[in-house]
Amino acid sequence: MKKLSVGIDLGGTKIAVCVMDEEGKILAKEIIPTKAEEGPTAVIKRMKESVYKVLDDADVSIADIEGIGMGIPGPLNAKRGVTRNLPNLPGWEGIPLVSIMKHEFGVRVIMENDANSAAWGEYLFGAGKYADNFLYITISTGIGGGVVIKGRLLKGESGNAAEIGHMTINFDGPKCGCGNFGCWEAYASGTALARFAEEGIRNGIKTKITDYLKNGVISAESVFLAAKDGDGFAKELLERESFYLGVGLANVINAFNPQRIAIGGGLTNQWDVFYDKMMEVIKKRAFSANTEELRVVKAELGSDAGVIGAASLLFSIE
Amino acid sequence: MKKLSVGIDLGGTKIAVCVMDEEGKILAKEIIPTKAEEGPTAVIKRMKESVYKVLDDADVSIADIEGIGMGIPGPLNAKRGVTRNLPNLPGWEGIPLVSIMKHEFGVRVIMENDANSAAWGEYLFGAGKYADNFLYITISTGIGGGVVIKGRLLKGESGNAAEIGHMTINFDGPKCGCGNFGCWEAYASGTALARFAEEGIRNGIKTKITDYLKNGVISAESVFLAAKDGDGFAKELLERESFYLGVGLANVINAFNPQRIAIGGGLTNQWDVFYDKMMEVIKKRAFSANTEELRVVKAELGSDAGVIGAASLLFSIE
Repeated sequence: MKKLSVGIDLGGTKIAVCVMDEEGKILAKEIIPTKAEEGPTAVIKRMKESVYKVLDDADVSIADIEGIGMGIPGPLNAKRGVTRNLPNLPGWEGIPLVSIMKHEFGVRVIMENDANSAAWGEYLFGAGKYADNFLYITISTGIGGGVVIKGRLLKGESGNAAEIGHMTINFDGPKCGCGNFGCWEAYASGTALARFAEEGIRNGIKTKITDYLKNGVISAESVFLAAKDGDGFAKELLERESFYLGVGLANVINAFNPQRIAIGGGLTNQWDVFYDKMMEVIKKRAFSANTEELRVVKAELGSDAGVIGAASLLFSIE
Repeated sequence: MKKLSVGIDLGGTKIAVCVMDEEGKILAKEIIPTKAEEGPTAVIKRMKESVYKVLDDADVSIADIEGIGMGIPGPLNAKRGVTRNLPNLPGWEGIPLVSIMKHEFGVRVIMENDANSAAWGEYLFGAGKYADNFLYITISTGIGGGVVIKGRLLKGESGNAAEIGHMTINFDGPKCGCGNFGCWEAYASGTALARFAEEGIRNGIKTKITDYLKNGVISAESVFLAAKDGDGFAKELLERESFYLGVGLANVINAFNPQRIAIGGGLTNQWDVFYDKMMEVIKKRAFSANTEELRVVKAELGSDAGVIGAASLLFSIE
């Protein structure tokens, strides 16, 4: 019988829980709203119920699984199994989540930064397969990353290695939610793209971006749609986005010298819009010794990357 | 009998060669001028002669050593054992240095980026001992780095991981020698400090820095001496230097989440001048989860870090 595990991907708006086998196949999956405003006790109660639910759906008992893997938004203290103040999840400072889940289910429980666990999932089952030096990047509302070197996840001392969205690309830049200034995330995330659009409009720039609001607000998608519609300002914003992507990627290429980079998150839906310009900036800025054999590809696990990554923490290639 | 190895530290102005034992003790050492202008053939000939010389001085034969370790300025292709265009060493593109040395001596030969091998030396024998997540940084004319994670050197795909001096801290910043813009090295190296002093003087700022020229030119030391003499501009430059150091350190702390950082290079002579302000910037900018248990210390191997690091490539803790 194939080995099985449970994965939990805890997000600010929803929680995904699955039962997965050691080949990355999902046997059962459930997505529930986080309802973060109800606080950690209520959220953890729902997480537990959801684990029982997917086990039931997959027709397996807790004794059949290797353990539970959890992908949690960083920064956290993975070594101690304790959460910190999670962005979008108020009140989570100091929750011993690993102990709580161990106590409930009596199995092995592993907790990692969500981008790190997604990187591990892509390495085992997706775009990172067989890469000795692999870097996964997710670009959506924020920017996160994970690194796998010769079959080992780079965790760092407290589980927060590869927080590459929070590397400064302009020390005089805007303050980021993390407390730092001019972070890559503050320039190249989807949130940043929407912010630049808003700023332009506030400054009187004429644009069709406002024709493409989503639930009444400007989103990254509004910019993509306006650019497709021929809007000059939207096109200019996407040019700048490609530049910022290239600048940050050159940084991580010089820092980690990966053989393969897989990019996931909402951005990959617009791959062709960015790819050429982004690669041009990388080639110009990163060491040529580090780019000659580098491949930059799309991540493969799509919207399941988080929950597959979490479940994959129980498995290795050895 | 203790295991022995030979280390070669190739620099732009001098080459250090040693015989070392597995406890990091140097049995014989020679430092010779590189004479880079004579080209690789002549330089390699001198390197070989120097290896024979130190073996002779240590009274051991080539059959007694585990192999030869070489620390070479990056970027290079360590995997293939081939050098690239080395800064300060014209004409070194594509030299198969590992093969050449193997052919001459018939022993195991390992080549690594010089900062990576220095990191390995500090990990085995210096300030990195017993640290699971260790980052070494050298700050002198340039800025280099090396990372050791759970007893393994982070090499990257071509041996150029942790080229942290060439991470952008301001994408609109000055062009760096590496081709990138606004690199950390272009703001926080000793060379950058001297350049900022020169720029100020050219712009008419009155300062005592010119009272402390070294061989007729402004150096980082000129700034230190003038600051000690109470010069306001020199003090301001050192404040900025501390800020730039903190900005770049926050970046690498978010990228690698180390447990310990050891800083070597000329800067450590002025540790007290920078330490407080640098740590203040780090605490403000890096994730608190990554700084709470972090120690930032002086490297311990001093001017021998390069050659000890090179020789240590033959040894591990296992």
